[in-house]
Amino acid sequence: MLNQVADLDRVFHALADPGRRVMLERLSEGPASVSELGKPLAMSLAAVVQHVQVLEASGLVRSQKAGRTRTCSLNPATMRSAERWISERRTLVERRLDRLGDYLAATEDSPDQ
Amino acid sequence: MLNQVADLDRVFHALADPGRRVMLERLSEGPASVSELGKPLAMSLAAVVQHVQVLEASGLVRSQKAGRTRTCSLNPATMRSAERWISERRTLVERRLDRLGDYLAATEDSPDQ
Repeated sequence: MLNQVADLDRVFHALADPGRRVMLERLSEGPASVSELGKPLAMSLAAVVQHVQVLEASGLVRSQKAGRTRTCSLNPATMRSAERWISERRTLVERRLDRLGDYLAATEDSPDQ
Repeated sequence: MLNQVADLDRVFHALADPGRRVMLERLSEGPASVSELGKPLAMSLAAVVQHVQVLEASGLVRSQKAGRTRTCSLNPATMRSAERWISERRTLVERRLDRLGDYLAATEDSPDQ
């Protein structure tokens, strides 16, 4: 569970970069090495490694080293926590807008309108 | 619909700041003026205005000026788009992990185990 303010800061910051989102897209299809993650991106391996570190620090990605290869995978629990933060607030707003809509509809239905 | 890369950059960047998330929390309870949004935060009005501008540029917040008061409200459609980006990738990973779990369970169920 990600309820700490700093954790959410790191997760949303990690998601805010288009290159990191390309990496997450790739990992949603299955685990990948750091160099595989860099393939579609026009950047140095050093830059790729830095992005992977941001993703790991956020908890969105986990990695394991076997020999000389580091394999990364997505952590669905962290993704779910970020989703939940947004959806709880969105649901509150939508409920209020629904109640307002019902109220306006009831007002319109009054006789002789 | 927020499918543009730059739009998602702006939305996740807007969500990555704890002060802006406090503002979004407040707006999930109903519309508020810029000065109301700043009340729980230890920052100048100029800083509050800047955060509100980041939220508006991301599409998470809309505002309307009436007289000297600018009233802000949450835009649930933008929140939903950000949620959807995360949930689509999370669902892919969870499905793959479920299939792997089923496979391992079936392997364990083999006779004489």
